Amino acid sequence: MADLKLDHIGIAVQSLAEGAAFYEALGLAVGGTEEVSEQRVKVAFLQIGDTRLELLEPTSADSPIAKHLEKRGPGLHHLCVRVDDIEAVMAHLAGAGFRLLSDEPQVGAHGCRVCFVHPKSTGGVLLELSQPAVP
Amino acid sequence: MADLKLDHIGIAVQSLAEGAAFYEALGLAVGGTEEVSEQRVKVAFLQIGDTRLELLEPTSADSPIAKHLEKRGPGLHHLCVRVDDIEAVMAHLAGAGFRLLSDEPQVGAHGCRVCFVHPKSTGGVLLELSQPAVP
Repeated sequence: MADLKLDHIGIAVQSLAEGAAFYEALGLAVGGTEEVSEQRVKVAFLQIGDTRLELLEPTSADSPIAKHLEKRGPGLHHLCVRVDDIEAVMAHLAGAGFRLLSDEPQVGAHGCRVCFVHPKSTGGVLLELSQPAVP
Repeated sequence: MADLKLDHIGIAVQSLAEGAAFYEALGLAVGGTEEVSEQRVKVAFLQIGDTRLELLEPTSADSPIAKHLEKRGPGLHHLCVRVDDIEAVMAHLAGAGFRLLSDEPQVGAHGCRVCFVHPKSTGGVLLELSQPAVP
């Protein structure tokens, strides 16, 4: 697990356009949007260095992002770490006593295989592991 | 402002050792710690790709991080964007109506010159601008 990258930082927003305004003023560009039906969100990515900001707008009132907005308002939501072999990382973390939110990888944006780690296991951060889809 | 980098992601923790445990299990390494007296915090940095996680432990009950921990618990605290000319970026953002938390840059970790942007201006994210100290 030597070559970890920060894939993205998830940010909950009321709308992608409103959420992007400050970052666009700073000089970042929205590189495209996508709907992730499993999570009931629309997402927009802004590249910054070798990582990305992922703006998350809920598409349904029962989206996890809608619940986050209701409870905590817009803002930082999760970190996503890119891994090469998600099953191996999941097994390693579960074996070390860290609590994963699913037993199997789920489907995320861009067809990645993802798994979330419970914030209670990470020191308060909702942490997503993501293995890119084979092109 | 074409060459922006994500300098770090600030994470509020009760203690640096506890806060680092999950990231160390994932394979990241703490690259050193530092006390930033102006912010009344001890910080530890963990490199990931071309950015870093910055764990923030309060050293005093009146530290902004102590207040964050009390109100929201440990977790994601702020994003820091590295800029080449902080005065120019501050003037540009202030001119565009974004609210800065100081009129002049302050001193941050590693002697950087920093300025925070109010979360109400960014879509809910406490955003730090940082210009590295001249070596």
